[in-house]
Amino acid sequence: MNQPAPDDATAAGTYDNAATRRYGQDPAAAIAAAAAACSNWNRWGPHDAVGTVNFIEPSHRAYAGTLVRRGVSFSLSLPFDDDGPQNGWRRRVNPVHTMTSTGASTAEMLGLPHGLGVADDAVYMPLQCSTQWDGLGHVFDHGIGWNGRNAATTVTSDGDLETGIENQSASVIGRGVLLDVGRAFGIDGELADGFAITPEHLDATIELQGETSRVGRGDLLLVRTGQLTRVRKGAGWGTYAGGPAPGLSFTTASWIHEHEIATVATDTWGVEVRPNEFPGSVQPLHQVLLPHVGLLLGEMWDLDILAADCADDGVFEFLLSAPPLPFTGAVGSPVNPIALK
Amino acid sequence: MNQPAPDDATAAGTYDNAATRRYGQDPAAAIAAAAAACSNWNRWGPHDAVGTVNFIEPSHRAYAGTLVRRGVSFSLSLPFDDDGPQNGWRRRVNPVHTMTSTGASTAEMLGLPHGLGVADDAVYMPLQCSTQWDGLGHVFDHGIGWNGRNAATTVTSDGDLETGIENQSASVIGRGVLLDVGRAFGIDGELADGFAITPEHLDATIELQGETSRVGRGDLLLVRTGQLTRVRKGAGWGTYAGGPAPGLSFTTASWIHEHEIATVATDTWGVEVRPNEFPGSVQPLHQVLLPHVGLLLGEMWDLDILAADCADDGVFEFLLSAPPLPFTGAVGSPVNPIALK
Amino acid sequence: MNQPAPDDATAAGTYDNAATRRYGQDPAAAIAAAAAACSNWNRWGPHDAVGTVNFIEPSHRAYAGTLVRRGVSFSLSLPFDDDGPQNGWRRRVNPVHTMTSTGASTAEMLGLPHGLGVADDAVYMPLQCSTQWDGLGHVFDHGIGWNGRNAATTVTSDGDLETGIENQSASVIGRGVLLDVGRAFGIDGELADGFAITPEHLDATIELQGETSRVGRGDLLLVRTGQLTRVRKGAGWGTYAGGPAPGLSFTTASWIHEHEIATVATDTWGVEVRPNEFPGSVQPLHQVLLPHVGLLLGEMWDLDILAADCADDGVFEFLLSAPPLPFTGAVGSPVNPIALK
Amino acid sequence: MNQPAPDDATAAGTYDNAATRRYGQDPAAAIAAAAAACSNWNRWGPHDAVGTVNFIEPSHRAYAGTLVRRGVSFSLSLPFDDDGPQNGWRRRVNPVHTMTSTGASTAEMLGLPHGLGVADDAVYMPLQCSTQWDGLGHVFDHGIGWNGRNAATTVTSDGDLETGIENQSASVIGRGVLLDVGRAFGIDGELADGFAITPEHLDATIELQGETSRVGRGDLLLVRTGQLTRVRKGAGWGTYAGGPAPGLSFTTASWIHEHEIATVATDTWGVEVRPNEFPGSVQPLHQVLLPHVGLLLGEMWDLDILAADCADDGVFEFLLSAPPLPFTGAVGSPVNPIALK
Repeated sequence: MNQPAPDDATAAGTYDNAATRRYGQDPAAAIAAAAAACSNWNRWGPHDAVGTVNFIEPSHRAYAGTLVRRGVSFSLSLPFDDDGPQNGWRRRVNPVHTMTSTGASTAEMLGLPHGLGVADDAVYMPLQCSTQWDGLGHVFDHGIGWNGRNAATTVTSDGDLETGIENQSASVIGRGVLLDVGRAFGIDGELADGFAITPEHLDATIELQGETSRVGRGDLLLVRTGQLTRVRKGAGWGTYAGGPAPGLSFTTASWIHEHEIATVATDTWGVEVRPNEFPGSVQPLHQVLLPHVGLLLGEMWDLDILAADCADDGVFEFLLSAPPLPFTGAVGSPVNPIALK
Repeated sequence: MNQPAPDDATAAGTYDNAATRRYGQDPAAAIAAAAAACSNWNRWGPHDAVGTVNFIEPSHRAYAGTLVRRGVSFSLSLPFDDDGPQNGWRRRVNPVHTMTSTGASTAEMLGLPHGLGVADDAVYMPLQCSTQWDGLGHVFDHGIGWNGRNAATTVTSDGDLETGIENQSASVIGRGVLLDVGRAFGIDGELADGFAITPEHLDATIELQGETSRVGRGDLLLVRTGQLTRVRKGAGWGTYAGGPAPGLSFTTASWIHEHEIATVATDTWGVEVRPNEFPGSVQPLHQVLLPHVGLLLGEMWDLDILAADCADDGVFEFLLSAPPLPFTGAVGSPVNPIALK
Repeated sequence: MNQPAPDDATAAGTYDNAATRRYGQDPAAAIAAAAAACSNWNRWGPHDAVGTVNFIEPSHRAYAGTLVRRGVSFSLSLPFDDDGPQNGWRRRVNPVHTMTSTGASTAEMLGLPHGLGVADDAVYMPLQCSTQWDGLGHVFDHGIGWNGRNAATTVTSDGDLETGIENQSASVIGRGVLLDVGRAFGIDGELADGFAITPEHLDATIELQGETSRVGRGDLLLVRTGQLTRVRKGAGWGTYAGGPAPGLSFTTASWIHEHEIATVATDTWGVEVRPNEFPGSVQPLHQVLLPHVGLLLGEMWDLDILAADCADDGVFEFLLSAPPLPFTGAVGSPVNPIALK
Repeated sequence: MNQPAPDDATAAGTYDNAATRRYGQDPAAAIAAAAAACSNWNRWGPHDAVGTVNFIEPSHRAYAGTLVRRGVSFSLSLPFDDDGPQNGWRRRVNPVHTMTSTGASTAEMLGLPHGLGVADDAVYMPLQCSTQWDGLGHVFDHGIGWNGRNAATTVTSDGDLETGIENQSASVIGRGVLLDVGRAFGIDGELADGFAITPEHLDATIELQGETSRVGRGDLLLVRTGQLTRVRKGAGWGTYAGGPAPGLSFTTASWIHEHEIATVATDTWGVEVRPNEFPGSVQPLHQVLLPHVGLLLGEMWDLDILAADCADDGVFEFLLSAPPLPFTGAVGSPVNPIALK
């Protein structure tokens, strides 16, 4: 591969940012501290397989129903095709879609009667190739996964035997809230690569956007950075998959935990600010949020059209339906999230 | 392959059933007659790419929002795994899910710092392997597709260049209605294989189920036959993929058309009753509904849990979110439909 | 899956056959005894990655060149397509071959000049879906692989890091010998399912076939049972993949070891007689030959045309070229073996 | 995609090179002229499916056997893995190899007895992703394929129904000859990108290399340019897949035809010199050699180790075994060619 590897750790050195000011320079120590503070282990019993999606209660979904006013729906999914962000890193290719029969296959060719023609197709794709959920079995901390599970025996070559994405198939629907940090703090709606979104940015965005943006238990949180806008405006994918990006600061772990948010999704490849905030680190926030908080992370969501609508009508909450496809034992899933206002 | 081929045409002979009584013995003539009566070509202009999904207006979606009362959500998707119904016919295999890294891949093995472990996965699957939508480019009538398009130049080996499933990505959400014909006319909730559901059965089911079951413009119609229940109870998949099945009679084409339904989905492999109702025929209703009516067909939807709930509370309408994954140029898509009551 | 699982262990009970008479009833003890007797660990140093292929020396290949007399070549490969033996067990499907462009894709459609048309294709396949080699990383004995390696750290989700099939890419070419046991001991050239081929059968077949059949160091041994003939004659694949089959008795382990054979291939799914010869056992001979002897096993080789030719001219030796495709880290490989006489 | 498209036609303008001097500026006219001069249509009857491989007669293979002297074998295949030349163009990705079980899958996890562990794997790959053969159905001239076939009806979404690569499964073995043009005319054994190899270069290389390099009927011709050496020395893949490259001049069509060569393979992505030699052209030599001459083209063959050996012992002929994998209906195939000296 000729591309930079997204899992190259950040350079050594002394870093000065919100995360190191709060947690110090050592990523392992920071992760341990944040994990201790934010752990939801055993909160829903020793066998729990869905984590913070437990926060979404029927009353939240019923409330979300009341947010459907104009009847306008938005897809938050990128196209799934070969013109996507993937570059082959860790065998993550873009989806390969092939036709097993086409419109040129006549009824005669197909051996079918009365002029019946059929086209059919297939796909090969990494489950995290485009708009997606990270499942609870996607990331581990020192060999330990969600709720304290042994990663080696839980997520085998037969898949995630306990916390597979299929456990989330019916429940990831509720009140969605968009925090358009790109619009609040960016230039032309875009945060620069390397911009770390802190709790203060999130709170200020809520303040700016108003009452419909309050965030609480069971909410499906969407954070727009504007990086995808930049890709679309002409920058192209470039190093979107793993390169420098705006994103959540490590310091948001406790904010997310305290607000009892159900899920978090962004318009970037990896949710977190890149380069990461600690020397010698790779995606440290994942290492807290997935195994310790038990939180689904949504990546590469296309929030632009929804964001424009929210900016237009001043309403930043909506019904959000974003169920993963129930691949048995999967640690991630493609998703076409639908916001309905 | 050792399995019966689902596209073997029905035997020659003279058939006596609702379809032949109405349309005669010749499937080609029947298709032509039904197509002429039910055509929506040019209804939404010459360039339309979404067909009857156009019937779903914002007001329908706003109304669907009011159907969210208890906040209970149901997934209507089968698991996506290797224990599915496919038998390899026309290269339709069950999804093959593989891990590209597992929980046994330690941070050291992965070259990652601070104890970060990552599991990742990929899938190969026909787009119509499990719970799915047939896209508008899936079926043709004598080489002609939706809205009169030339199939050979519209659906090429690069995919469906005009009516690909991605055009439906934001809109397949609205009021769902369940007609539980299996419960109304079956034994233990199951229609026998070969049972042809006619308009009379549909009307009687609506009558039986009551006001919440009325069907009209823009509705997402679910028809439960109970065949999947039979599979689950112990019959196993057997010839579920293409063998004998209960399903819609060819005579429902005009009923569906007149009611201006947006989409139809069932709990069977192929929506239509099998064996099909005309001598020497294969899936004749598809040949009317997809290219002429412009209707998305949902197949292999798991309606049992939802049906039990509807039977329980007597409410057969709900918000239904069933967006396809936007594979560019696809003629079908896996889907995890969510009903929210 | 509706198919019997090929890895169901044989029934409990007391077995009376050549293997139990020699090794007793306990498969674990039998494997341990045979492994101790036949081990090649460290024979080629602690880092060896190719096992008994080391036996093939340049002089053997030079001799094999002299066996090319008539210039007639034979492919020993089954077709690779969807009409193959696989039934989905352990996600082993038949190859799925799809066209990414076809002859109907004109130069104009493809954006190509001067009437240039291009067809292109892709495949998804398990590496052991059809005619194949089992690589040295395919089978382990109590977590230990070839030459005493720790299986867990050697064969990870990144593949076989030390004994991958790519290590064999240049060397699997030499003198091939066909022992047509089906012709020698079968009816119409076919051994019955469950027929266990013992060293005595192998020696008698050599005796019967004559001088060109002598077997020794560095030879690539082909053993024909005739099971594939039966499939082809009309039985169909049935349970070819893992069901009852003629094959090598566990007692051949020492014979193979003593003769210093380089590789063994048969016309069956799994080389060994099925059901296996010990109570509660699954493919015990594999557990000796791969991790302890370090021997490549060829499966599902089509030996019929070659066998007919050998029977005809009485010459059972030939140049055999059977290099695996060098998939980096693979534990198996498709192969199109060519015999040249 | 961010990569240059290999099928971008060469720029307009007036070109001065061996090809335009002989054939003029218009690629379509040049192709027509060369096709007329070199056509083998009907040479082997109207139903022929293998083209110039017909030139390989048993006597050639018997002679090839005599070339096996030292018993040294060489693989001419690149590794098949994710670190390959493909960049996603026309959905050609590098092979994606995944483990369906690993060495960490213990006997207990797998439900297997007596400590039996099994690793297994699968691959997704375009058939022309790495070292490969172009099959006869790969390229067409104005909708016409080998022997005058209608491309649209011959190569459908079910594959190549008449000239699929499986027809070549037993026969691509014979006398190989290496013409190391890179060594003869390059700097440090490497021709510069854009270097067009003409018949004069080929003849001069034969002259230089001596008697073992004479080329004639039925030979499998290998032409080394040294481009792959450059990649390996540190240039990396870069635009190897479709970018500038040394390669055969269009003027070699008649030379190849007159010598009655069976197959031609090179160490480049596309055999032909790149950029191509006519204004507004894409791979014009393919358009002659595949549909008109009926010649298999080998691409991305790794000739360096063999070339070093030939340079060392001065012998440029050998037994070459290069059978495609018999994917039914395929228009290309991966191959691990073995040269035996």
